[in-house]
Amino acid sequence: MLEYTDFEEKTIQRTEIFHGKIIDVAVDDVALPNGGTSKRELVFHPGGVAVIALTAENKMVFVRQFRKPLERVILEIPAGKIDPGEGNSPERTGARELEEETGYRPASLEHLYSMYLSPGFANEILHIYCATAITKVENPLPQDDDEVLEIYELTFEEAQAAIADGSICDAKTLFALQYWELLELKRRKGLA
Amino acid sequence: MLEYTDFEEKTIQRTEIFHGKIIDVAVDDVALPNGGTSKRELVFHPGGVAVIALTAENKMVFVRQFRKPLERVILEIPAGKIDPGEGNSPERTGARELEEETGYRPASLEHLYSMYLSPGFANEILHIYCATAITKVENPLPQDDDEVLEIYELTFEEAQAAIADGSICDAKTLFALQYWELLELKRRKGLA
Repeated sequence: MLEYTDFEEKTIQRTEIFHGKIIDVAVDDVALPNGGTSKRELVFHPGGVAVIALTAENKMVFVRQFRKPLERVILEIPAGKIDPGEGNSPERTGARELEEETGYRPASLEHLYSMYLSPGFANEILHIYCATAITKVENPLPQDDDEVLEIYELTFEEAQAAIADGSICDAKTLFALQYWELLELKRRKGLA
Repeated sequence: MLEYTDFEEKTIQRTEIFHGKIIDVAVDDVALPNGGTSKRELVFHPGGVAVIALTAENKMVFVRQFRKPLERVILEIPAGKIDPGEGNSPERTGARELEEETGYRPASLEHLYSMYLSPGFANEILHIYCATAITKVENPLPQDDDEVLEIYELTFEEAQAAIADGSICDAKTLFALQYWELLELKRRKGLA
């Protein structure tokens, strides 16, 4: 839609810093389009999937878990990294994570958005799906060994309270709640 | 609001991997609350501020820039990292970044949300503000040397088209557009 000039930053040299289980880190020396040079610190991540799941009682499903980078427990919508082999089907990742983390299985998943979370330094992309007609599974997929979490189902008002008290404080979950607000508003106004 | 059990992951040992200009990287060996151990790859970031800025003509202000982690140009709301010394005043960061990147100065900034972008591995927090009554500054603060960007002002419909064509594809900007949709819906329904 828009006519663009060339803004590309050409890589002069890449220095590999770290090859982890989840992230890789590198520093690129780049040639800027304005003639200068700079360094770019880069984090590479396999990407993830998050699921907005509403129960038949119109409650949203959340998981509560400790997040080491924040050194605290927070409340989030179910989400997880894309496993090798799932790369071409984030929908499969979404269904798997929802079941592993919450014991719910969706009739289907509707793709809402795919978003880069922190494009200044990371290539991590998050695919957000909305789950329809979720049902509790008798014998759900087991949780990951190193994930310890609790499941919560909150009404819209309870979720708003969890924003106010700081329990809900991450981008994907705040995005999900804003999506819910939009949904509720459209519903109440007979637009959806 | 919710009664919680103890989910803390205790640090057994931290290994410092990288100390960069923008990010630091470390790996923690942690003791899990269920008795096991695991490793956590961690990225530390100073945090940032993003500004939702609407003109008197009800257009939103965007900047277009190359993002090295994505190897492409994208369209985002104005944002930037918190400078040392601005730590206690993200509002000051927001006003500075808006002026540096777009030449606009706000009458005031309203704090909307503070959100962790990627709490699984990074502690980066983004403070989102809404700017009111922005005006073009005659001699704005200069742009950063290593930032090359263009300014766009888009109507709501143009911004939706930029989502559809993939130009708008990051979390803060999609959040801002969802916020705008909510604002428009409330306005049209006489709720705001």
